[in-house]
Amino acid sequence: MSTILDRLAELMESRKLANGGDPATSYVSKLYAKGDDAILKKIGEEATETVMAAKDARVSGEADKVLYEVADLWFHTLVLLAQFDLKPQQVLDELARREGVSGIEEKNSRKD
Amino acid sequence: MSTILDRLAELMESRKLANGGDPATSYVSKLYAKGDDAILKKIGEEATETVMAAKDARVSGEADKVLYEVADLWFHTLVLLAQFDLKPQQVLDELARREGVSGIEEKNSRKD
Amino acid sequence: MSTILDRLAELMESRKLANGGDPATSYVSKLYAKGDDAILKKIGEEATETVMAAKDARVSGEADKVLYEVADLWFHTLVLLAQFDLKPQQVLDELARREGVSGIEEKNSRKD
Amino acid sequence: MSTILDRLAELMESRKLANGGDPATSYVSKLYAKGDDAILKKIGEEATETVMAAKDARVSGEADKVLYEVADLWFHTLVLLAQFDLKPQQVLDELARREGVSGIEEKNSRKD
Repeated sequence: MSTILDRLAELMESRKLANGGDPATSYVSKLYAKGDDAILKKIGEEATETVMAAKDARVSGEADKVLYEVADLWFHTLVLLAQFDLKPQQVLDELARREGVSGIEEKNSRKD
Repeated sequence: MSTILDRLAELMESRKLANGGDPATSYVSKLYAKGDDAILKKIGEEATETVMAAKDARVSGEADKVLYEVADLWFHTLVLLAQFDLKPQQVLDELARREGVSGIEEKNSRKD
Repeated sequence: MSTILDRLAELMESRKLANGGDPATSYVSKLYAKGDDAILKKIGEEATETVMAAKDARVSGEADKVLYEVADLWFHTLVLLAQFDLKPQQVLDELARREGVSGIEEKNSRKD
Repeated sequence: MSTILDRLAELMESRKLANGGDPATSYVSKLYAKGDDAILKKIGEEATETVMAAKDARVSGEADKVLYEVADLWFHTLVLLAQFDLKPQQVLDELARREGVSGIEEKNSRKD
């Protein structure tokens, strides 16, 4: 596997309890042990923290915290994807598909 | 640029008003015209919709909606990253950095 | 009925489609016509807007926006409560019950 | 003071550090000691938990969890209001004001 998203997807798989993940030593395994609600709570939390970081960045002039919070948010969406046996590549494929569709839509809208 | 995330990052740049993006024809340009709060509201919204989709998926047995909502959430984080002149590659680098750190942490924790 | 929360609870009931609420003229009836997900999306949105308003208030020094956003958030929780045939008085009773319990807990914790 | 919301507003005031609140014995004082971000994170969390509880309630047929989560959400908005020296009565006044305005708006909209 070549990309960081693929490697992280493999990591998430390996952290599942059925694959030997240990909640005592792994944060991700602990989330899987707790189940859907624990993962979804984190999605909500990290989204809120992203919003706060962006607000703070406008005051401080430093965007680093936005970067860290988006990384946290993506990380927990990777935990969620694996929980539903989905791969990040499927999300990228969906985004690529939409980019194509919207490209055509926008080209057409410019003809009007 | 080779990956879909890079291509989307280029798309976001091109949709900025300073780069000729037109709020009348582009959804993303409209978000940039409205500013930070409009983008941050979308982050909150898409996180909530991801939570709802995951709950629905457990009832319906179909995970597709989770995939679509995570795609929506990632898409709007890409809008946000560009708004703060950040690149998705920086998020991936941060995730790779943490993966390394946590790998070491976990190896150490197993020695205990 | 004496309090504003009770009056609003009555308003929500009257806006339900089964009670003659008309989505064409009432915002709340429109939410009820759309169903649970539309109401829950608003809860998520108003929470995010409350967070943004609080951040803004620290910069502007004006807390009014926090007040308006909390009012929006409470309003939509009243829509949600009615959707589940719950009354705001039940929420107040639950808060009163906890206040009592926590009062005792804290008194005890001070003995330690 | 007569209502539970007023009593809780008094409680929040008494939990502030400046008024002798002790983070070692009081959950609310601990939130005040941590500051705005800790309170705002809780608003985001409780909103997400309200969404999850409503989804669960449609499966289980039991609305109690919705009630508890709305109580949690209101509780933390009371912590936030006090943090900005706002009173729950001001929120109720704002809701009463809107109810009047929207009543007029809706009456007018029916004339169309």
